[in-house]
Amino acid sequence: MKLTSYVGPDGRESFGIVTGSIDKPEGIIDLGARYASLRDLLADAEGMAFARSQQDATPTSSFADAKLLPVVTKPDKILCVGVNFASHVKETGRETPTKPMIFMRYAESQVGANQDLLCPKVSEKFDYEGELAVIIGKRCRYVPEDKALDYVAGYACYNDGSVRDWQKHSQQFGPGKNFPQTGALGPWMVTSDELTDISAQSLKTRLNGQEVQTATLDDLIFDVPALVAYCSSFITLEPGDVIICGTTGGVGAFHQPPLWMKAGDTVEVEISGIGILRNGVVKEADDFAIL
Amino acid sequence: MKLTSYVGPDGRESFGIVTGSIDKPEGIIDLGARYASLRDLLADAEGMAFARSQQDATPTSSFADAKLLPVVTKPDKILCVGVNFASHVKETGRETPTKPMIFMRYAESQVGANQDLLCPKVSEKFDYEGELAVIIGKRCRYVPEDKALDYVAGYACYNDGSVRDWQKHSQQFGPGKNFPQTGALGPWMVTSDELTDISAQSLKTRLNGQEVQTATLDDLIFDVPALVAYCSSFITLEPGDVIICGTTGGVGAFHQPPLWMKAGDTVEVEISGIGILRNGVVKEADDFAIL
Repeated sequence: MKLTSYVGPDGRESFGIVTGSIDKPEGIIDLGARYASLRDLLADAEGMAFARSQQDATPTSSFADAKLLPVVTKPDKILCVGVNFASHVKETGRETPTKPMIFMRYAESQVGANQDLLCPKVSEKFDYEGELAVIIGKRCRYVPEDKALDYVAGYACYNDGSVRDWQKHSQQFGPGKNFPQTGALGPWMVTSDELTDISAQSLKTRLNGQEVQTATLDDLIFDVPALVAYCSSFITLEPGDVIICGTTGGVGAFHQPPLWMKAGDTVEVEISGIGILRNGVVKEADDFAIL
Repeated sequence: MKLTSYVGPDGRESFGIVTGSIDKPEGIIDLGARYASLRDLLADAEGMAFARSQQDATPTSSFADAKLLPVVTKPDKILCVGVNFASHVKETGRETPTKPMIFMRYAESQVGANQDLLCPKVSEKFDYEGELAVIIGKRCRYVPEDKALDYVAGYACYNDGSVRDWQKHSQQFGPGKNFPQTGALGPWMVTSDELTDISAQSLKTRLNGQEVQTATLDDLIFDVPALVAYCSSFITLEPGDVIICGTTGGVGAFHQPPLWMKAGDTVEVEISGIGILRNGVVKEADDFAIL
């Protein structure tokens, strides 16, 4: 089952089940009458069963007419993992980490599929990072690894767009990872029952059609159960929380010369078994401010 | 004017004006009938004027009968500044930063004054960090330094309690700064009109009555206007957001031997012109988990 948040043709924000295949989505079955948001559905122990019971309903809008929002529109937390692919560790010149490297994004920094990413006016170093997003289904704390997958509702694609110069102002990555409209979560979440071996999937990132990142998810240094267990040790994970698992080799910063995203670009993150997250890129206006 | 969030004797969560002096608070004038939260009051352009108009009202409860909550109960963001006092830079052996070092806390990690801080079961290295908290009053982005103070609603004390071993699992501080009940924001916010020169104030931290940190706020490497301007460049600041300005020399980790907080301790952060934030310390139960 594929679930996402969207704005329908009537301008109303909702969420629902995407019908059709991951290659050819067709419609959306609105579930917004019963729950205010996908996060609320996940938070209800009966929510997923309710969603499954609606899978054969008639779509309420065509997929093409929906404006996609981030799969979870306002996750309480987006926990991001740094340097978690062996191939990316190699290109950064870092040592293989002994514990997951976790930094945070706020929900305001992300957009949905097909929405434009925004290169801030104060930087020219806007980079892509194709990643796997894990969406938490149940509240948990101190989950052991061998039970961790019970708390995963599903998986989506993520572009952890990074403003590299601001990321490197200090050793803390936060500023470079929280500019508005720099991350993307979509196009939908595939429920975990349909992806029982996520490590068997592959991830590709394309910039203007050219493949720039490729990896298999079995190359993760800390796999999904390890990340859920680790994160749930220092914070209570809530339904709708997102863990993004880190990017692989091939980020723009390590190209020679560097390959930054610029206005007019199209970037795609594709994960087998999930689908393609596609976003355009625009540049923030020089005079933009909120004062 | 002093504002805070609290639970009244009737068990209802609200917020209001603290009457009396910072040394001898007397009552609370409930403002919860008009706004759902302090954050909502700040978000309304008329909110602060309304609060001022209520200053002479009769307190609705005694201060002693109120259970204090974090001044802002659910700030959208808590942006934390690392190594921002010259004296603390010296003890850490780091170089003086050229840009503010920013990491993030989530709201769930903090408590109010007089509530217990919680040393997690997975660590023995729970440290205090007395800090100045800046509370944002108006939405802003790309604020220049010379206008930054117009966007500050007020100031409070913060204890940026740090789980040092988890903070040092990688170069990213987040895990060590987000355990539940490890930060404290209180006891109230003093509005910025009463603290026109915050840099003239002094900060002290006491553990079980013994002074362990002392500094004047003119020792900040990046002052309040610089921090508001910097943070508003990479993220949109919202009413109720909190920026905590970094701690000074004397943290427990650099004592010889290290001075960790433990169950039964009392820790106080005092800032002149604001007041004293006092918290006890308890230890998490060995079998605690949410599964």
